[in-house]
Amino acid sequence: MKNYCFGIDVGGTTVKMGLFKTDGQLVDKWEIPTRTEDGGKAILPDTAAYALAKLMEKDIARDDVAGIGIGVPGPISADGIVPHTANLGWGYKEVTKELSELTGLTCRGGNDANVAALGEMWKGAAAGHKSGVMVTLGTGVGGGIIIDGRIVTGTNGAGGEIGHIHVDDSIPWLCGCGNQGCLEQVASANGIVRLAKWMLESKAKETVLDPETMTAKDIWDAVKDGDNFACEVAERFGSYLGLALANIASTVDPEVFVIGGGVSKAGPVILDYIKKYYIKYTFKGCRDAEFVLATLGNDAGIFGSAKLVIEE
Amino acid sequence: MKNYCFGIDVGGTTVKMGLFKTDGQLVDKWEIPTRTEDGGKAILPDTAAYALAKLMEKDIARDDVAGIGIGVPGPISADGIVPHTANLGWGYKEVTKELSELTGLTCRGGNDANVAALGEMWKGAAAGHKSGVMVTLGTGVGGGIIIDGRIVTGTNGAGGEIGHIHVDDSIPWLCGCGNQGCLEQVASANGIVRLAKWMLESKAKETVLDPETMTAKDIWDAVKDGDNFACEVAERFGSYLGLALANIASTVDPEVFVIGGGVSKAGPVILDYIKKYYIKYTFKGCRDAEFVLATLGNDAGIFGSAKLVIEE
Repeated sequence: MKNYCFGIDVGGTTVKMGLFKTDGQLVDKWEIPTRTEDGGKAILPDTAAYALAKLMEKDIARDDVAGIGIGVPGPISADGIVPHTANLGWGYKEVTKELSELTGLTCRGGNDANVAALGEMWKGAAAGHKSGVMVTLGTGVGGGIIIDGRIVTGTNGAGGEIGHIHVDDSIPWLCGCGNQGCLEQVASANGIVRLAKWMLESKAKETVLDPETMTAKDIWDAVKDGDNFACEVAERFGSYLGLALANIASTVDPEVFVIGGGVSKAGPVILDYIKKYYIKYTFKGCRDAEFVLATLGNDAGIFGSAKLVIEE
Repeated sequence: MKNYCFGIDVGGTTVKMGLFKTDGQLVDKWEIPTRTEDGGKAILPDTAAYALAKLMEKDIARDDVAGIGIGVPGPISADGIVPHTANLGWGYKEVTKELSELTGLTCRGGNDANVAALGEMWKGAAAGHKSGVMVTLGTGVGGGIIIDGRIVTGTNGAGGEIGHIHVDDSIPWLCGCGNQGCLEQVASANGIVRLAKWMLESKAKETVLDPETMTAKDIWDAVKDGDNFACEVAERFGSYLGLALANIASTVDPEVFVIGGGVSKAGPVILDYIKKYYIKYTFKGCRDAEFVLATLGNDAGIFGSAKLVIEE
């Protein structure tokens, strides 16, 4: 058994890199800028160079490295190919093959939201569980489905595209995906603000919130302060997310749901609103699923990517 | 490699039994009555006796049998335990352990809707695919999720409980599961009749259908004859089922959807109505999923159960 591996999380601004022991101990982590110019052609060479340099620095033999796992912000096939990743500048790219050639190491890839889910299942909020679903409530709504310790990638890399579950015909805006009624439109950081504005349009409400400037954080702070309107928004948010997760439960029946991303920083109150409606809508056999807040934060991606190259 | 195996499908009235070659060839199939009296205690001994007798009849050595797969109508854990199966008379029962002791053969178990899905994926409508979702539109709405050739059983045996996906707050009746708004209430054989009656209540319609006596078959026959009201019912049915399958696609992104059960005997027309709404609601990456009608009919269960004991 080799002792080390790398977990890489490629984002639009920085590449997060982690050197791990194969038992899951994080040895070192660092970031490098994501150079998206020229079709993002420097991203993988930069990543490879900093990985190999770290081995030199730590005096670790390449033979003692199990491999490199890499998470990318977009669909990636089981054999490590991305068709197109706009925010990295990439067109068609054989990511794992290229990174493997650059480093001489085994390489496996995954979608960023999916590997974050795997990270939380391995060493984060859901450690010890075999199957779980993570929802990342950030700029968008991402997700990952883990069954028996493995990511459900899906035929088109769309496994865990939870943000595009249809929750309400009446949502008036188009989603970036081209559909109407997507969860992302009412449950992401921007989505909850949009939801609040929409609810204010239909009826004027007394609230501490300023419709012009309010953020997701403002809304949850107001919920904690007992603002009636903010609590109505939280109920509506909870009903959408609870419904989506209930329908996921009738499909894959996970042990645990992990709620992460910026919106989840509001804390346990968010779980209360989600669970209330999850329990209302879910199949009775699934009512006891656990709900937990993510614990790895921005490190979930490097943990999950590292796990991709560790066999158990 | 052993050459034979059994696939068993236990129903409330009969136990369907199949002797297979391990390459998937059905050698012989037959049925025995399901004796549910006395807590269903004779069901497994009857099954074991008829399996062993078949080996004698065919002059097959027990050593040449890979095992017995058994599907049961209710939740069953990964280690073959059912907590309670009302329509067989069973309470807590260690199904695979008991059947293994009775036969001297390896035994694996699965839920009946799940093994039917596995059967269609192995030798039926979806043969050659690695991941697929089957929906069985019968007395109820059952389902099975197959990922990389394996059943997603779920933590509580509720994987693939597609009938209990919540599709519409306004559905006025309670489902047998205790919730309101379940797909089963509007998409099963009884459900589509209930849906048609509900649509007639809100507004009188000209139709060839007799509200007192119509069946699911009558409704689909009327659709094929161009009856306007029947077509409205089919649209509504398609929108519910298309929505549920679209949301499943955003979760597990399967290659193929298999539509089976009695209602599917209406033929390809049913796929047209489902696909129309599936395409409306699904994430764009999943729009090309295939839709096929089940082909194994009542044999899907014995095929899928047999597959449970065949490693690839």
